[in-house]
Amino acid sequence: MYYIGLDVGGMSTKGALFNKKGEILERGTLKTIADQDYKVFVNRLKDLCLDMLQKQKLIEKDLLGIGMAIPGSIDTKKGIITYSNNIKFKNVPIVKEMQKYFNVPIKIGNDANLAVLGEMYFGSAKNYNDIVFITLGTGIGTGIISDKKLILGKAGAGAEGGHSVIRLNGEPCTCGRKGCWESYGSATALIKQTKVAVDKYPNSILADIAKKEGTINGKTAFDAERLGDAVGKKVVKKYLRYVGEGLVNLVNIFRPEIVLIGGGISNEGDALMKRIQRFVNRYSYGGENKTKVLVKKAELKNDAGIYGCLALFLED
Amino acid sequence: MYYIGLDVGGMSTKGALFNKKGEILERGTLKTIADQDYKVFVNRLKDLCLDMLQKQKLIEKDLLGIGMAIPGSIDTKKGIITYSNNIKFKNVPIVKEMQKYFNVPIKIGNDANLAVLGEMYFGSAKNYNDIVFITLGTGIGTGIISDKKLILGKAGAGAEGGHSVIRLNGEPCTCGRKGCWESYGSATALIKQTKVAVDKYPNSILADIAKKEGTINGKTAFDAERLGDAVGKKVVKKYLRYVGEGLVNLVNIFRPEIVLIGGGISNEGDALMKRIQRFVNRYSYGGENKTKVLVKKAELKNDAGIYGCLALFLED
Repeated sequence: MYYIGLDVGGMSTKGALFNKKGEILERGTLKTIADQDYKVFVNRLKDLCLDMLQKQKLIEKDLLGIGMAIPGSIDTKKGIITYSNNIKFKNVPIVKEMQKYFNVPIKIGNDANLAVLGEMYFGSAKNYNDIVFITLGTGIGTGIISDKKLILGKAGAGAEGGHSVIRLNGEPCTCGRKGCWESYGSATALIKQTKVAVDKYPNSILADIAKKEGTINGKTAFDAERLGDAVGKKVVKKYLRYVGEGLVNLVNIFRPEIVLIGGGISNEGDALMKRIQRFVNRYSYGGENKTKVLVKKAELKNDAGIYGCLALFLED
Repeated sequence: MYYIGLDVGGMSTKGALFNKKGEILERGTLKTIADQDYKVFVNRLKDLCLDMLQKQKLIEKDLLGIGMAIPGSIDTKKGIITYSNNIKFKNVPIVKEMQKYFNVPIKIGNDANLAVLGEMYFGSAKNYNDIVFITLGTGIGTGIISDKKLILGKAGAGAEGGHSVIRLNGEPCTCGRKGCWESYGSATALIKQTKVAVDKYPNSILADIAKKEGTINGKTAFDAERLGDAVGKKVVKKYLRYVGEGLVNLVNIFRPEIVLIGGGISNEGDALMKRIQRFVNRYSYGGENKTKVLVKKAELKNDAGIYGCLALFLED
């Protein structure tokens, strides 16, 4: 028997056809078009599903369920997208609409929530019950599992831990507050911080790299640091402090067993994980009696969401 | 049938004997002596229990269970106080020790956690499933219920939301970090902030009140504000901003239905609740589509913990 996972992103939607062992047999994608009528969108999702089935010579009756990961506020019980900023949906009964095409159980969830669920069942957090998952990307996404259960909250939107003020009166954030963690610890923030340093130190190795590559990204400062550049080192040190402070805030609230780090910045790998590990060891609450929290790279990367869709059916 | 709740505090331990309707039939207290041998302490707890039973002409066989609220890190499953800073206990098998005297189910929990459980079953948060409870007292305590379940974390110590940095490089906190919410939003912090203002504005009504009363407490600035004092108003405004910022951080993470406020500062009552409500409405995440979070005073006050002990037996 088989399952389908659909990870709806702002730009594209990824599909995967799983067997019951959790192996991906088939993949597919479609372009997500924001603002389009949800019925048209669901019709395209249906085609994506049928296409994956056909390629594996399967039919609808072979399916045990379809899971969908969606960015935004989700009413998981009613099967409704309450609000999604990225795909411009508001109060969309997407499960009901999908069920016009597929007579199987259909479940939905917030994408960040499903990503952490995916990591718990299939990725870096197997056998852990208390997990804080953060993604350092365009923003800071957070998905949290406490005692094996996802933190959903009333709106079903998932934990917006990135929108936690760590610097009163700090940088303005898209959410309307000032000084949110996301404005300091996201990849976007690091790029800004790198740009400032490049302008300030035009003779640094950091500025050289930026010039050679013609662009500044989340890797630039790390690259400069690796070449022994004092400016790059300073930028990275400060940035990691920002990441660490917001992360320790979450660690103090949830007391997890494990912290998973995903998103573009996590590609810095083990060296980065070790530095964040040291910060968490040092500053998390509890003095010498505290239990150690493991910091680890999220391994499923872009597949965390679709694995989470499958995990929805293991939750019962 | 009857239950006993024991709320172990740093200074004193409160006991209550409940009937199955959740009414308190008898109360008792004993002085908590830190550093004493745990076996001696449990022996005294036993006497407190027997005393309450006797006064109601009851015997041990009438008891259905004993619940205990303890400050610190608790292993609820093993019945062990892992670490308590206040009562200087470390790895104390308190349930096992109590069971030498009472052949009934004995359960323990962190005091802040049990306080929010008490409010959920018997107090201000009846019929709510997603609750953030904060106490503005000596520190900032936080107890959180997500989808009817307490946030326990690995160490069982409960959510240390007070130790969340809201101002990078800010005031030093007892936990070793700088800029924790507790250092800005607790009653202790308000008293400090009031003292600074009194020194700076010796001709203010605020300074007058402080002089007349011979002391500064968590009420002083609010009293000055009520008398129309600009300095008092300024102190309160700034303080409420601190409270609000840390609170909205928690609201964004947990998306609760209700926020309960307890601790000394909550005695300012409805006027205070309304101001915090406005802050939460304005700054919590989600734009116009956000669901409203109710801000309410915690009504059980000092009894929240012992009601939480009883609630432990309703959790099954």
